[in-house]
Amino acid sequence: MAHINVPDGVPGIRSLVMFRPETGQHLYALAEVLLRGDSTLTQAERELMAAYVSRRNECVFCSSSHAAAARCLYGEGDATVDDVLNDLDASNISPKLKSLLQIAGKVQILGKEVKQDDIDVARGLGATDKEIHDTVLIAASFSMFNRYVDGLASLTPTNSEEYKEMGKRMVQGYVLPPNNS
Amino acid sequence: MAHINVPDGVPGIRSLVMFRPETGQHLYALAEVLLRGDSTLTQAERELMAAYVSRRNECVFCSSSHAAAARCLYGEGDATVDDVLNDLDASNISPKLKSLLQIAGKVQILGKEVKQDDIDVARGLGATDKEIHDTVLIAASFSMFNRYVDGLASLTPTNSEEYKEMGKRMVQGYVLPPNNS
Repeated sequence: MAHINVPDGVPGIRSLVMFRPETGQHLYALAEVLLRGDSTLTQAERELMAAYVSRRNECVFCSSSHAAAARCLYGEGDATVDDVLNDLDASNISPKLKSLLQIAGKVQILGKEVKQDDIDVARGLGATDKEIHDTVLIAASFSMFNRYVDGLASLTPTNSEEYKEMGKRMVQGYVLPPNNS
Repeated sequence: MAHINVPDGVPGIRSLVMFRPETGQHLYALAEVLLRGDSTLTQAERELMAAYVSRRNECVFCSSSHAAAARCLYGEGDATVDDVLNDLDASNISPKLKSLLQIAGKVQILGKEVKQDDIDVARGLGATDKEIHDTVLIAASFSMFNRYVDGLASLTPTNSEEYKEMGKRMVQGYVLPPNNS
């Protein structure tokens, strides 16, 4: 049971933004711009970053739902998401995306962990300032979302089919649910 | 020097939101609601939470600026902010505020660190659901802001007078700076 009185049966962050839409509207708007707004990073790559950071923060709700969204975007039969979540170094993604995920992993630990060398590697592989910016902010924002969802013990479904359906909805947009008041 | 090409001489998060106002607008709007919106927690208490979490995340820019904002709100000659930052347990704040800061400190580590006992203690001392919610989200959001500011190595002033002036401006509102484009 969640630590505060949120709507029954509503999973994860959705229950929290229904409890407090005044803050929730800005959280959803941030996710929408970062994960679905104009970017030279694909939506699949950005959902993968969200899943990767959430897995490192041990947030089952966020990692399962964003991994499902990323799988939906990479397409049926593509193993990228699971390969990255199982072993980033051994995964068969582009060197540029790998360098950005390595930066995301350092941000997950703490901001100061990102060194000039990490930035130089990514830039040498073609990453732009905006891509580096968005990678850092995606990793930082999921360090918030993960703590929010788990810090209030929001409902975490255990059924993988439920996450699959959630992923399909998420890739269509992050839209604030109706107010419960 | 910052890891990306932000406006020269602009400190901290301000330089980052000028680089990317599409995300910056939602970050500032979130800070404005959480730290200055309607609440039964005083603005001073909320700025203190922001400073406390930022100190634990070793973010000099955020901890110095939000400590300055909190000192400005507690008033000249009041030692609350420094007492809490030096030693929360020994500080002379209300038991309820102390229990909320203890929850904030657990969120700073990871969401799962918050246990039912921590919530029961805070509730027993009079904390409401909304106060518990906002404490967790303030701690979670500063786990984002701190990583954002340090992960991109934004300019961190070292002059305490500069933070004092910053604190005075912050307590008047979190308003997006003009676009640099």
